[in-house]
Amino acid sequence: MAAGCFYVSCLALGSLGSICLLFTAYWMHAWRGGFAWDKTLHMFNWHPVLMVAGMVVLYGAASLVYRLPQSWVGPKMPWKVLHAALHLAAFILTVLGLFAVFQYHNQQKIANLYSLHSWLGITTVFLFACQWCLGFSVFLLPWASEWLRALLKPFHVFFGASILSLAMASVISGINEKLIFSLKNSTHQYSTLPSEAVFANCTGMLVVVFGLAVLYILLASPWKRPELGILTDRQPLLHDKE
Amino acid sequence: MAAGCFYVSCLALGSLGSICLLFTAYWMHAWRGGFAWDKTLHMFNWHPVLMVAGMVVLYGAASLVYRLPQSWVGPKMPWKVLHAALHLAAFILTVLGLFAVFQYHNQQKIANLYSLHSWLGITTVFLFACQWCLGFSVFLLPWASEWLRALLKPFHVFFGASILSLAMASVISGINEKLIFSLKNSTHQYSTLPSEAVFANCTGMLVVVFGLAVLYILLASPWKRPELGILTDRQPLLHDKE
Repeated sequence: MAAGCFYVSCLALGSLGSICLLFTAYWMHAWRGGFAWDKTLHMFNWHPVLMVAGMVVLYGAASLVYRLPQSWVGPKMPWKVLHAALHLAAFILTVLGLFAVFQYHNQQKIANLYSLHSWLGITTVFLFACQWCLGFSVFLLPWASEWLRALLKPFHVFFGASILSLAMASVISGINEKLIFSLKNSTHQYSTLPSEAVFANCTGMLVVVFGLAVLYILLASPWKRPELGILTDRQPLLHDKE
Repeated sequence: MAAGCFYVSCLALGSLGSICLLFTAYWMHAWRGGFAWDKTLHMFNWHPVLMVAGMVVLYGAASLVYRLPQSWVGPKMPWKVLHAALHLAAFILTVLGLFAVFQYHNQQKIANLYSLHSWLGITTVFLFACQWCLGFSVFLLPWASEWLRALLKPFHVFFGASILSLAMASVISGINEKLIFSLKNSTHQYSTLPSEAVFANCTGMLVVVFGLAVLYILLASPWKRPELGILTDRQPLLHDKE
């Protein structure tokens, strides 16, 4: 029953993540002129799509690898490799998303990293890089003792969830900023809620729902690898042993 | 040792929360003309101060009541009353903060609730109201069974933490929006990072640090009421019994 419930939730979560991504891409395509990789505004349009894809959707999926019932039995190493590989793919998309906005800004002589959105965003990416390197060094490479892994795991889980929360805040402030900049001089002011504003606001709210759903499954759901070989219901996540 | 550590952390957290509040108030006082309750821009200036005070600082303090070592022994009811009362005070500050911005908007014929910041903010306040009513009905009033309380507690804790995360995202997008609106036509453009922008950006980042520290103590620290009368180290928070 628990596993069946998990797969239904997975399907719902996967659909929601896909909708977040498709909505962001459609916003850029339908109202902002589409995509190119040429340092123009069309290159900027990759930024929201790649950040939502990398820092939210793929990051969220990668975080939930150990919630798959298949990962609860047998050797843990293949799941660790998958967890690290998916997070690495998420990080690469994130870096491409940053590259797109920096290239556009530099070409157009727009200042980089001045807004609070950018300060929080770049801090989140930096924490993500630190988290990945720490996870790789301690949990994937063989040198660390069980004692060290057990000590660091609660922090790894907490900071993993925190980075997703900060990514959500960055996405919200980024969509808000983009709409203020894009809908200020046109006949469609942001304050009149034209269709673009409603669509992008809804996209932001969906990203929040997706992020909270991931955090719920990660931190509070009963789906996790049983400890000590006993399949118990509703076990704690934080503070369990590696 | 654990209790001593807790009080040092409390002192640091209290100082950080006070700094967040003072910095927000100083920003409004020094760069935005100060405060009044007269439906002008000076009334709007209460909005960020009251939202940071209510939805972040006091909400955070109220969330941590059960982490006080004094609350670990003896009857739980006085601590429940304190928890509910502090959250109610936080909610009242929040409503006053909303009142300030609505009054200003209505007087100046500015549209309400169009930006993503406002959509997320009002959703967060609505969830806060639901959470308080649910908490009051189930955990403070005597009618609910132990079984129901044990069932609902993980959701209460998860949504409590989620509401603080959403409040952080609302504050970040709000500060970002305010700086874009305020520093667009002046000689001090936001993109040139004048002193106001640096100060307000730092305030936003401090709010994030405060929020994460509260979430860490709430979800991942070893400070919590021992279950079944046994004072164990590093216990789980989510999924424990009422």
